[in-house]
Amino acid sequence: MSERIPVGVLGATGMVGQEFVSFLRDHPWFDLTFLGASDRSAGKRYHEATTWRLGGETPAYVRDIIVSDSVPKGAPKLMFSAMDASVATEIEQAFAAAGHFIVSNSRNHRMDADVPLLVPEANADHLELLPAQRKARGWAGGIVTNPNCSTIVLVMSLAPLKQFGIKKVIVTTMQAVSGAGYPGVASLDILGNVVPFIGGEEPKMESETQKILGTFAGTKIEPLDAKVSASCNRVPVVNGHTICVSVEFAAKPSEAEIIAALNGFRGAPQLKDLPSAPKQPVIYMEQADRPQPRRDVERENGMAVFVGRLRKCPVLDYKFVAMGHNTVRGAAGAAVLNAELMKVQGLL
Amino acid sequence: MSERIPVGVLGATGMVGQEFVSFLRDHPWFDLTFLGASDRSAGKRYHEATTWRLGGETPAYVRDIIVSDSVPKGAPKLMFSAMDASVATEIEQAFAAAGHFIVSNSRNHRMDADVPLLVPEANADHLELLPAQRKARGWAGGIVTNPNCSTIVLVMSLAPLKQFGIKKVIVTTMQAVSGAGYPGVASLDILGNVVPFIGGEEPKMESETQKILGTFAGTKIEPLDAKVSASCNRVPVVNGHTICVSVEFAAKPSEAEIIAALNGFRGAPQLKDLPSAPKQPVIYMEQADRPQPRRDVERENGMAVFVGRLRKCPVLDYKFVAMGHNTVRGAAGAAVLNAELMKVQGLL
Amino acid sequence: MSERIPVGVLGATGMVGQEFVSFLRDHPWFDLTFLGASDRSAGKRYHEATTWRLGGETPAYVRDIIVSDSVPKGAPKLMFSAMDASVATEIEQAFAAAGHFIVSNSRNHRMDADVPLLVPEANADHLELLPAQRKARGWAGGIVTNPNCSTIVLVMSLAPLKQFGIKKVIVTTMQAVSGAGYPGVASLDILGNVVPFIGGEEPKMESETQKILGTFAGTKIEPLDAKVSASCNRVPVVNGHTICVSVEFAAKPSEAEIIAALNGFRGAPQLKDLPSAPKQPVIYMEQADRPQPRRDVERENGMAVFVGRLRKCPVLDYKFVAMGHNTVRGAAGAAVLNAELMKVQGLL
Amino acid sequence: MSERIPVGVLGATGMVGQEFVSFLRDHPWFDLTFLGASDRSAGKRYHEATTWRLGGETPAYVRDIIVSDSVPKGAPKLMFSAMDASVATEIEQAFAAAGHFIVSNSRNHRMDADVPLLVPEANADHLELLPAQRKARGWAGGIVTNPNCSTIVLVMSLAPLKQFGIKKVIVTTMQAVSGAGYPGVASLDILGNVVPFIGGEEPKMESETQKILGTFAGTKIEPLDAKVSASCNRVPVVNGHTICVSVEFAAKPSEAEIIAALNGFRGAPQLKDLPSAPKQPVIYMEQADRPQPRRDVERENGMAVFVGRLRKCPVLDYKFVAMGHNTVRGAAGAAVLNAELMKVQGLL
Repeated sequence: MSERIPVGVLGATGMVGQEFVSFLRDHPWFDLTFLGASDRSAGKRYHEATTWRLGGETPAYVRDIIVSDSVPKGAPKLMFSAMDASVATEIEQAFAAAGHFIVSNSRNHRMDADVPLLVPEANADHLELLPAQRKARGWAGGIVTNPNCSTIVLVMSLAPLKQFGIKKVIVTTMQAVSGAGYPGVASLDILGNVVPFIGGEEPKMESETQKILGTFAGTKIEPLDAKVSASCNRVPVVNGHTICVSVEFAAKPSEAEIIAALNGFRGAPQLKDLPSAPKQPVIYMEQADRPQPRRDVERENGMAVFVGRLRKCPVLDYKFVAMGHNTVRGAAGAAVLNAELMKVQGLL
Repeated sequence: MSERIPVGVLGATGMVGQEFVSFLRDHPWFDLTFLGASDRSAGKRYHEATTWRLGGETPAYVRDIIVSDSVPKGAPKLMFSAMDASVATEIEQAFAAAGHFIVSNSRNHRMDADVPLLVPEANADHLELLPAQRKARGWAGGIVTNPNCSTIVLVMSLAPLKQFGIKKVIVTTMQAVSGAGYPGVASLDILGNVVPFIGGEEPKMESETQKILGTFAGTKIEPLDAKVSASCNRVPVVNGHTICVSVEFAAKPSEAEIIAALNGFRGAPQLKDLPSAPKQPVIYMEQADRPQPRRDVERENGMAVFVGRLRKCPVLDYKFVAMGHNTVRGAAGAAVLNAELMKVQGLL
Repeated sequence: MSERIPVGVLGATGMVGQEFVSFLRDHPWFDLTFLGASDRSAGKRYHEATTWRLGGETPAYVRDIIVSDSVPKGAPKLMFSAMDASVATEIEQAFAAAGHFIVSNSRNHRMDADVPLLVPEANADHLELLPAQRKARGWAGGIVTNPNCSTIVLVMSLAPLKQFGIKKVIVTTMQAVSGAGYPGVASLDILGNVVPFIGGEEPKMESETQKILGTFAGTKIEPLDAKVSASCNRVPVVNGHTICVSVEFAAKPSEAEIIAALNGFRGAPQLKDLPSAPKQPVIYMEQADRPQPRRDVERENGMAVFVGRLRKCPVLDYKFVAMGHNTVRGAAGAAVLNAELMKVQGLL
Repeated sequence: MSERIPVGVLGATGMVGQEFVSFLRDHPWFDLTFLGASDRSAGKRYHEATTWRLGGETPAYVRDIIVSDSVPKGAPKLMFSAMDASVATEIEQAFAAAGHFIVSNSRNHRMDADVPLLVPEANADHLELLPAQRKARGWAGGIVTNPNCSTIVLVMSLAPLKQFGIKKVIVTTMQAVSGAGYPGVASLDILGNVVPFIGGEEPKMESETQKILGTFAGTKIEPLDAKVSASCNRVPVVNGHTICVSVEFAAKPSEAEIIAALNGFRGAPQLKDLPSAPKQPVIYMEQADRPQPRRDVERENGMAVFVGRLRKCPVLDYKFVAMGHNTVRGAAGAAVLNAELMKVQGLL
C-alpha cells in the first residue's frame, strides 16, 4: 500500500481526533502517518499521549507513532483538522498558507464566504470556491469544512427534497452526548434527563443549512432562500442525533414522490464510488417507530442518514423523522468523504 | 376528618391507580375509601392485590382496604377513573348512569361532544357541558375528563397566550416512560435510545388542544381555530414530558408581554384556592438551559408547568420549551384538581 | 456453499431466536434453513411473524423463509433451541427422540446428570456424556446445553485458573437487560436504577459453575469441589454482564502467574480453529478501569471474555473484574460454538 | 428563631456545598449565615457565584448572602466543610486552630488517629477523641469527620450486627454518579455502562469501616479486628449507593436474629431525638427485589439505610443488599447529624 497518500490529523488525541484515527484504519487511499497535537502531547507515543475513549483499545496501527507539534513543517499535504475551536483558526490558516489542504471538522471557517462547507452528496460544486479562496488569501493550500453534526442530519434529509422548493423548515433535535466531546456532558446533567439547550447549536443549524443548500455563484454561495428554525436538545443517547422536521415546499409533492426522492437520492460520492460513500445515502424506513439511534446508527458504516414517519403536517406541508451518526457522518467520516471527493477531482 | 367526602378509584391497582392513591393521601377534602379493580383483584387486601411500583412502600392508609369489584353498588358518589382504555367505556358509563360522578383520566370519553375535557386553569367554564350531558344521556351522574399527559403541558403553556390569538402551533415532545404505564416501555426499547413514535399520541395532542382551548357555546365546545401539529417521541426519562413549541399569533406580542402573561396567569384553581392548585400554575425560568425534567419535575408538588427559552422563531413567531409532570399534572393530580373545582362549584 | 449443513432454530421469532439468526448469517459450516416457532407464527414469512428487535432490519437471508411448526418432521438434524423454558422440555425431548441433535440455550436440561453443560474451552470432554444420555433415554439424537449468560462470564474467567485449585468463589454480577429477553425488564424498573434480584439466577450460577468446572467420570460429572456464592443484580446496560469476583485457591499463585494463565488459556475451539472461536478466549486488560460493557462488549465478535483489575483480596486470595457478551458468548454464540465442536468431533 | 446557632459552610458553591445549603434549610437548631468559597467566588452573591445543580432553584434563604473568603475571621464557631480534598487540609486546620469546630465531609483528616470518624448511631463515643486532639494539636477548636459515601452504607448495615462478632466482609458496590461531584463522571463514560473502578475508594471503604466499628481506647481507636474487602463500581444511577455484602460472624446468629438486630437498631441520634435523625436508622425490606436506589433513596428524608435479601452465603455466613443516599446520609446529612450530636453533648 506504499502508493497510499500520506495524511495527518491535527488534534489527534481528542475525541474527534480518535474518531479520525478509528475511521482511517485500513483506508484504501489515505495512510495516516502524522498525528498532531498540543505541546503537552508532542513527543510522546500516541497511546501514551491519549486516553482512548472509543470502544476497545488504541488501534495498533497508530499506537507507537510519535505525536507531532501542530506545525506544517514535515506534515503531509493533506491534513484533517479535529482541533478545538479555541485553537483551530490560526493553526488551520498557518497550514493552508504553507501549502496544505486542511479538511476541517472545526467550526471556525465554516461560514467564511470563501470556504466550502461541503456535503459531497449535496453540494459538490461548492468546492469550486477553492480557487477564489486561495487567491484571495494568498494561500498555496486551502481549507474545506464539513458541517456541524446536527446540521448534517438535516441537510442530508433535505437535499433530496430541494427539487420541490424548500420554503420553511422547523426542526427539533434530540442529540447524543458524543456530540459534545470529552468530558463533554456531565452525567449529572443528562442521566434520566433532557437538557433543552446546546450552546450555539441552533444558529449553526439554521445558517449552515442555508449555505450548504445554497447555490454556487462564481466566487460565493447564494444561500437557500428558506426560513429555518431549530430547537436543539441533549438526550441520554451515546451516538446518533434524531431530529423531527416539518417542511413547507413551493411545489406540492405527494408522499410517494418524497419517499422516492429520498431513496433515490445519489450524489457525487455514489457516482464516483468513493471508498467511504454509502451506497444509498438516505434510507427511508417503513416501520412505524423508526429510525432509532441505538438500533440504526451503526448501519451502513455510520455513513447513511435514515428517515422515517413521513406524514402530513397540519401547519407546514410534511413532517418526518431523521437520524444519523453524529461522530461518523457528522464528523470524521464527513471529513474523510470530503477529502475523497477532493482527490477524485484532482485537487490534492 | 369525618366530614371529608368519601371517594373511590377505579383501576386502583394499576400504575395510574397507584398515582391516585399516592396523590390522595392526606387530602383535606377527599377520603379515599373505595378501591375498585378487576375480578382478579377484588376481595384481596390492596397491598396483596398490588405490586407497588412507585417510590417506597404501599401507603399505610390503603394497605388493608379490601379491593372491590368495579360496580356502582356501594361505591362513593365521586369516583376517579384510572382504568385502562380497553374497559373504561362501559364501566364509566354504568357508574354515571347509576348517579356517580366519574372524574376520569382515561381517554375514552375525552373527545365526546358533551363531555368536558377539563383543565381548570384554562377552561373551567366547560363544566357547563354537564347538564346537557346528563340530560342527553339520561344520567343521574356524569363524566368529566382530563387531557392526555402530553396535551396538558402544551395547553398549560398556551392558555396564558390565548389572548394573543394563537394561529399555528408546532410541537415536538420528549416524553417520559412513566406515561406508558407498567410494564409499558421495554427497557430494550429505550435505554440509550429515542423512540420517535407513540401510538395515537399525536392526533390526541392536536385535537385535545383545540377542544380545551375552545369556547363553550351553549351545549358544545367550538374548538380553537388554530392549526396544531405534534411530533411525539419517547426518551429515557422517568417522569416529566418536555416539549419544544413554535407558535404563531394573530397579535404580535413582545417577549416581555409573553413572559408576563405566562408568569401572571391565574385561573379558577388559584382564585378559589383549591387544595391541589399550584400557587403559580405556569412558571417561566430565566436560566438558559431550563426547564429540565429531572431537576424541575418535582417542584410545586408536580402541579405547575415550567416554561423557558422563549425566543423568536424564524418560521412562526416565537419558540419556547415547556415541561410538566406527566403522572401528576398530567394524570392523577389533574383529575383531583378537576374534582376540587367541581366541589366548589357545587356539582358534587 | 451447497455443502453447508442445514440447521434450524426453534423459538426463532423470540429475542434469543433473533440472536441465532443474526449470529448464523454467513456461517461457513451451517446453513440456517428452518425457523421453528409457535402455532401463532407458523405459516407466515419470518419477517411478518417477527418484530425484529436487534439493530437494523430483519436479515435478508431469512426474511422470506416460511416459519415452521416446532415438530421434528422435515426439520434438519442439527437444531438450535432458543425456546422459552415454559415449552422447551417437551419439544426438545421430542426432537432428540426423533434423532435430532438439540443444541440448546434453554435452561431446562442443563442440570440433568446426563446432559453436557458445555463450554468448549473449559470442558470439551463433557461431550462424552452423550452416548450414555442417548442410551439411557433411548434417543436416536441428543441434547447438549450451554450455560446461563451470567455463568459463562464467571466460568470463562475461572477455567484458566482451575489449575491453581479453586476453593471458594464470591461473585457479584451487574447484568445487562438483554439477558431478560423481550419485553423483559420494564424501563420503569431499571432507568436510573439497580434491581438487586434476578429470579433463579443465583442458584443457577452456583450450580452450573460447579458442573462445568467438574470432572467427567464415565457416565456423569463430578462437580468441582468449591464453594460458590453469587449475588445477581440488573443494571441499566444493554449488552454485557460485568462481574466482580473474589477467589480462594489451594495453590498460592502470584499475580503474574494468574495473568499469564488467563491470557495463555486456549481450549478445544482454539486448537481446532472453530469458525466462531475467539483467537484468545480470555483477554486480560491492563487499564485501571476496564473491562467495561459498553466499550468492550463488541470486541472479538462478542466471543471473548475480558478480565481486569486483578488484585489481592483481603478476605479470600484475589479479586478481579470480568465481562462478557451475554447474548453472544452467553447465548447464541455459545450454542453455535458448541455445535461447531460437535461437528469436528464427528458427532453430527 | 434568633436563638439558632449560626453556622457556616466552607466550599459552599460546590456540589457538596449545595447539598449542605439544601439540607440546612429550615434547620431548627442551625442558622446558615456564612458561605465560604474560593477567592474567585468571594464577594459575589451566592446565587451569582453558584451554578445550582440540584433540583429546582437556588434556595431563597441563601440567594443573596455575600460569599466569604475561606478564612476564620468573622466566621461562625461551627463550620461545615465541603471543600475539595486538594485544599481542605490547611484551611480546616487553620479554622480549628482559630477555635472553630470543623465538621468535615472531606476525606483529608478521616484516618488521623486523633480525629473522630463519626457515625452517631455507631460510634458516638469516638467523640471522646476530641480532647486529646485539641491538646495534642494545641487547637482551641477541633475537627470531626464523617465517612466516605460508600462506607456509610456498609457501616450502617454492619453496626447492628457487630454484636455477633464480625470477622470477614466482602462488599461489592454499585455507586451513583452524584458521589463524584460535578462535573464528576462524564456521560460518555457511564451512559449504558458500568465503570468497575473508583480511584481510592476501595482502601477507604476497607480502612474506614475498621476504624468506625473500632473501639475507643483512651486516646485512640482500636480498629475492628475484621477483614474487609471492597470492589467499587460506578453505575448509571443519580443518587443512592447499592452494595452487596457477604459477612462471616464469630457467633452464628439466625436470620431472624439478624433482621431483628437491623430493625431494632437505635443509637445516640434516636435516643436523643436529634432533628436530622431517622426514627429507624436501618430498615429491613421484605420484598424480594429491594432496596432499589431510585425507589427507596428519598425515603426517611434520605437519612436511613435500607437492607434486604438476607440469605445464607455458601462461602461466608450470610449475604444481603444495602442501599443509602450517598449525598445525604453519605455527606451533608451525615455531617449535620454529627454536629447535632456534638451540640447535645455540650461540645459546641
